[in-house]
Amino acid sequence: MAVDTAATFEPVAADLPLVDETMQRVSEVEFEWLALLVKHVLAASGKRLRPALTLLAGKMFDYNLALLVPMAASVELLHTATLIHDDTLDKAALRRGLSTVHTVWDANTAVLFGDYMFAASAEMVSRTANVRAMRQFAQTVGIICGGELSQHYRAYDWQVTEEEYFRRIGGKTASLFALATESGAYLSGAPETAAQALGEYGYKLGLAFQIADDVLDLTSDEATLGKPAGGDLLQGNVTLPAIRFIAQAGSQNPIRRFLEAGRPADDLAVVLDAVRASDAPAAAMATARRYVDEAVAAIRGLPICAARESLTTLAAFTLERRA
Amino acid sequence: MAVDTAATFEPVAADLPLVDETMQRVSEVEFEWLALLVKHVLAASGKRLRPALTLLAGKMFDYNLALLVPMAASVELLHTATLIHDDTLDKAALRRGLSTVHTVWDANTAVLFGDYMFAASAEMVSRTANVRAMRQFAQTVGIICGGELSQHYRAYDWQVTEEEYFRRIGGKTASLFALATESGAYLSGAPETAAQALGEYGYKLGLAFQIADDVLDLTSDEATLGKPAGGDLLQGNVTLPAIRFIAQAGSQNPIRRFLEAGRPADDLAVVLDAVRASDAPAAAMATARRYVDEAVAAIRGLPICAARESLTTLAAFTLERRA
Repeated sequence: MAVDTAATFEPVAADLPLVDETMQRVSEVEFEWLALLVKHVLAASGKRLRPALTLLAGKMFDYNLALLVPMAASVELLHTATLIHDDTLDKAALRRGLSTVHTVWDANTAVLFGDYMFAASAEMVSRTANVRAMRQFAQTVGIICGGELSQHYRAYDWQVTEEEYFRRIGGKTASLFALATESGAYLSGAPETAAQALGEYGYKLGLAFQIADDVLDLTSDEATLGKPAGGDLLQGNVTLPAIRFIAQAGSQNPIRRFLEAGRPADDLAVVLDAVRASDAPAAAMATARRYVDEAVAAIRGLPICAARESLTTLAAFTLERRA
Repeated sequence: MAVDTAATFEPVAADLPLVDETMQRVSEVEFEWLALLVKHVLAASGKRLRPALTLLAGKMFDYNLALLVPMAASVELLHTATLIHDDTLDKAALRRGLSTVHTVWDANTAVLFGDYMFAASAEMVSRTANVRAMRQFAQTVGIICGGELSQHYRAYDWQVTEEEYFRRIGGKTASLFALATESGAYLSGAPETAAQALGEYGYKLGLAFQIADDVLDLTSDEATLGKPAGGDLLQGNVTLPAIRFIAQAGSQNPIRRFLEAGRPADDLAVVLDAVRASDAPAAAMATARRYVDEAVAAIRGLPICAARESLTTLAAFTLERRA
């Protein structure tokens, strides 16, 4: 990763380990095998981008770690729970370089354990004792699930529209980013307009993040991604760069042929070559860049401080990650 | 069912339809196919025992339907969500006489939709704006999932202990009954001792309910159950009557042979005949009866009123249902 997240997270870097410690304590349960499951999924540590967003948003106001740490941990636990179910349904073998739960254990264990982690994230947010945070959390879980269901429902359909795509990634990705930033603000006594601004920042950043992710899935390689390229298309998931490519190529396009032929793995390289040779990936990245600009614009009216600077820098870096 | 639940629920019977209406409104979503899913699972209406428990507990104190209706709806939605995942993992074809979600749609849809209903139940409890209710709700989801995981982990093992069994059903069933009754009490301004008493009532009632259910699964027939008898053993789930039978029959027993042979469906009748010929079912029912007595005893100190009478009657009826 080209981005120095440690530097970007600097205003809250000293406190991020508290979030990790709080998450790890979820593994302190009576059953040894359940503890093993929790440790397994928490060992595959991500960049902790979402918890950092919560702390950075809070840092702009009355920075209260007693509320912000459980909130940040809750957001990351929820993210982890959704990944467990996603990987199980997608039959993905790897996540963050580690074997997925359903491959180490089995699919039924993975479904039940994903449920358990949803519960752990809900219990964690309840530690804020803040009704608004708990309610937004519950609503966000519903929005994420709606986005996932929508993606599942429209899978294998080459005629997915941009409108459907944005509704889907708004649900499955951007809503969680918005929860992370907005809750960080109002849990720290931010004025309502500032909380809304940070919520909008998070939402737009989430859209940009997901678009960049979807472009990389088509244009990058296995060594960089940690999983084979083109995984989205193999799952029948038609993303923005694919939609843009199809719009240019017309109704007789290689993505349609690939999907209608039942997604033969051997034909994937041809599809990827065609997409890469087009300007669809660049067009999608331009859209992501526009959302980054809108995210930064959303918080431009907030007081200048180190945390706001970090959020601004971080937004720009979203497009460069793993590139 | 031999029990006239309408009469038992009498003090709150006029208000139970409000709970149903509130639940049905979950289907008012943008996507028609998601609305169809919600309507499908809510059409298979159960007895609404858990919502009735919440309202009856609240009826003993300052009966506030603005809080009790979303709480009761939340408990029933959570119950529905757990059934969707249970049936999917068990590959069950029917639930309450209707086809299960994974058979009408597919397993992936069922997992995502179960998640969605979990979210709907969490959103519903947030409408109480009561931190204690929201926190107990989240903790209960975790306890239920822990119970389900424990059952899954110990499946196919004929040497499950009674201690393990009670921990499992305490998690997967009794904790939700306790949430239903205890929250009904404290949302209605009950004194803490009364809330605790009603929580204990719910927990003990839940244990009795599950034991009776587990006995019926071994001793009843398909016409009565709405599904084939012996389903638990076919799933490798060794319940209290089975544990009691094994304790009498010794280490060379037909349940062990059945499980070790990979649960051949053709051999199930022999196992069921042996269990039915023993006094293990009656011994398990005696234990259920003891928990009913303890449930009734837990609320004996509360003020005499129609709602308390209903809860007392309802506890006794738990053992007679479908018998």
